[in-house]
Amino acid sequence: MPVAVSATLAADEALARRRLAGQEVLSLASGEVGLPVLPRLRSLLADAAGRNAYGPVPGSPRLRAAAAGYWARRGLPVDPGLVVCGPGSKPLLFALMLAVGGDVVVPVPSWVSYSAQARLAGARAVPVPTPPGEGGVPDPDALREAVAAARSGGRDPRSVVVTLPDNPTGTIASPRTVRRLARAARELGLVVISDEIYRDLVFDPADRIASPALYAPERTVITTGVTKNLALGGWRLGVARLPDSDTGRELHTRLLGVVSQIWSSTAAPVQEAAAYALEEPPEVTARVTASRRLHGTVVREAARRFAAAGTVLTPVRATSYLYPDFEPLREDLVRLHGIRGGTALTELLMERYGVGVLPGAVFGEPDDPLRIRIATSRLYGETDAERTAALTARDPLELPWIRAALDRVTEVLHDLTGRPPGPAPDGARP
Amino acid sequence: MPVAVSATLAADEALARRRLAGQEVLSLASGEVGLPVLPRLRSLLADAAGRNAYGPVPGSPRLRAAAAGYWARRGLPVDPGLVVCGPGSKPLLFALMLAVGGDVVVPVPSWVSYSAQARLAGARAVPVPTPPGEGGVPDPDALREAVAAARSGGRDPRSVVVTLPDNPTGTIASPRTVRRLARAARELGLVVISDEIYRDLVFDPADRIASPALYAPERTVITTGVTKNLALGGWRLGVARLPDSDTGRELHTRLLGVVSQIWSSTAAPVQEAAAYALEEPPEVTARVTASRRLHGTVVREAARRFAAAGTVLTPVRATSYLYPDFEPLREDLVRLHGIRGGTALTELLMERYGVGVLPGAVFGEPDDPLRIRIATSRLYGETDAERTAALTARDPLELPWIRAALDRVTEVLHDLTGRPPGPAPDGARP
Repeated sequence: MPVAVSATLAADEALARRRLAGQEVLSLASGEVGLPVLPRLRSLLADAAGRNAYGPVPGSPRLRAAAAGYWARRGLPVDPGLVVCGPGSKPLLFALMLAVGGDVVVPVPSWVSYSAQARLAGARAVPVPTPPGEGGVPDPDALREAVAAARSGGRDPRSVVVTLPDNPTGTIASPRTVRRLARAARELGLVVISDEIYRDLVFDPADRIASPALYAPERTVITTGVTKNLALGGWRLGVARLPDSDTGRELHTRLLGVVSQIWSSTAAPVQEAAAYALEEPPEVTARVTASRRLHGTVVREAARRFAAAGTVLTPVRATSYLYPDFEPLREDLVRLHGIRGGTALTELLMERYGVGVLPGAVFGEPDDPLRIRIATSRLYGETDAERTAALTARDPLELPWIRAALDRVTEVLHDLTGRPPGPAPDGARP
Repeated sequence: MPVAVSATLAADEALARRRLAGQEVLSLASGEVGLPVLPRLRSLLADAAGRNAYGPVPGSPRLRAAAAGYWARRGLPVDPGLVVCGPGSKPLLFALMLAVGGDVVVPVPSWVSYSAQARLAGARAVPVPTPPGEGGVPDPDALREAVAAARSGGRDPRSVVVTLPDNPTGTIASPRTVRRLARAARELGLVVISDEIYRDLVFDPADRIASPALYAPERTVITTGVTKNLALGGWRLGVARLPDSDTGRELHTRLLGVVSQIWSSTAAPVQEAAAYALEEPPEVTARVTASRRLHGTVVREAARRFAAAGTVLTPVRATSYLYPDFEPLREDLVRLHGIRGGTALTELLMERYGVGVLPGAVFGEPDDPLRIRIATSRLYGETDAERTAALTARDPLELPWIRAALDRVTEVLHDLTGRPPGPAPDGARP
């Protein structure tokens, strides 16, 4: 079951090679958050450098208690005994697929690794489209049909993945849709794996994230980590919250078996610093708030520019992702470049402009639509000084390096489409 | 495909619970190395705490170059482009099984996780006994028979795991056996996965480790890490060396796909400190030398005491493991305790004496023989001060806490067997 290197990581490395070769690049492919480590977390990792014991398979008691507190503050209390830590939420998602077994329903579009992980787990992904404007959650009615069809075809779907908020669209499924999804999962006997790694990056405080754990608590696993809210991707730490039910406890036992046999435990010094982060003292909360504001400001300005160039976007409400549709520009793209799909569009953006993006196809979209995913979380600067300035600026859009990157977006879109930028339609405004 | 929690990790947690409950325990189950982090490595991890980018999937260029240098100094030069890093050599072994595909030949006895990982990878382990006194390498003739039988039975073995030096026996297969194994693997078209995590813990400098990479370089993958030689298990870092051949390069591509989809990359601060360790400056070499001497002194004294109690052991030449056979004491064990197998013996040692060991059965031995694995790497002290004293002591056996632990072994064996300790047979002496 060969799988290709993760498209986001591969695009990132291609950009790094071009940069090393002295070429101008604009990195809009990887969702890595280009912000510095909060100084207090850096010093806590340093203080914990002497920790060289494996420690418990699911993570240290302090880390698990901290994660339980994190969820309790979000209306999702949990026994720390049902928390499992891993070297990223990504390996936890894979371990969960192995522990649940069977095929895995994934939304379309969705993050590049769900389907690849299902294949590595010896299963198959069952793709189900999301409702319009509500990325990350398979349409509940389409889910019922797809699972029925899969089962009558001899396949064995046992879980459904949801992404709240969503990558690649930056949208948030409505509570009503999540509730309907949860009900469908219960009727179908599916475990819900709710990837909530972007939960802390919702721009409007009035926007509620309704986890499926609220509606189907007995069967919903939540995963998150410190990669997106605190820019600690390279530290590799994630946590999973298992359901407090017979299903959940049985799954917990199976998951610990998988975890103990694949990776034993998670880097002990990192656990120590991450525990502090998940305890959310004021300095941590302040940093997450500043990051969220920065993400929102920059990604929505980027959205405005894509909209002004004639692409169509659902308003972005979280994350640092855009998912513009170039369909309205199809005739121009065919006429000027012979381009008919997102994959060719991505290649052109890289080769002609040094702009790294990802095509909708890698998010599981059939028929290679003219959609690309844009990540703006690498535009905050090249140095810690620039990145810190971006975090604290009154208006980050006035910082020269951020402004230059966004102006480069406008320039490339103009050159690509042969159209001067127009006013953005209202729908694309924040 | 449910798998149980790793037996070593489970035993370790059971001991920790007993200790917390105030009971006297002697931890001889886990192979975790109870020694402090080398101060320089601690400060390098601290200095690298600001590294929060994912970095390249296979590891940083510096880490890969350092690993290549490590192998070059051992007569196994490799292009750093064929080195792949992971959060432990354990996940690398699992990723290799997924990347190679097919069933996996494992030695009997062998480390608890090989077979479990094969099952998680959707494959099966093909058990093959090792030649007498040469743990870790399947007997080459038996390998040929087992692979032929598996293939004619419709199974598809594509790789064979070897452990050099061996866990659980602490022995080292002879160069002749390794060469014959390599030849058999070539004839059978098997990839050799050579787990050399204990390579730096060979007591006698004259004892040569003959890696199968010397005899079948085109098909041998080597894994190692900083867990055993530098006691950094809780940091979670391992490296794999892939063959410089068409097979190796194809496997490298597949492995990167697997790695990128399961864990993305390895904790960046840990990579930085581990790179320094793998560069082996004099202070690192000195620490490894001191650790090796300590391991050898303590494990061989423990061997002497098991031999004096009437068990049979192959002389231990590396690691901190013993694998005593209680078969000569069978009648006593049956008469005194009704014990007929290693599993019951392990349970009795834990329940009556608070002594944690592992039965041969968890290492894949059929018919639950009266063999147990003893790990002595946790006897060096409870505090960093005690452990540092153990590393630097002229005679570690004179340190009160080490002497007390070893005397407790003698006392328990005496009580267990009803026999006073006798002189050790010559074969068990170092």
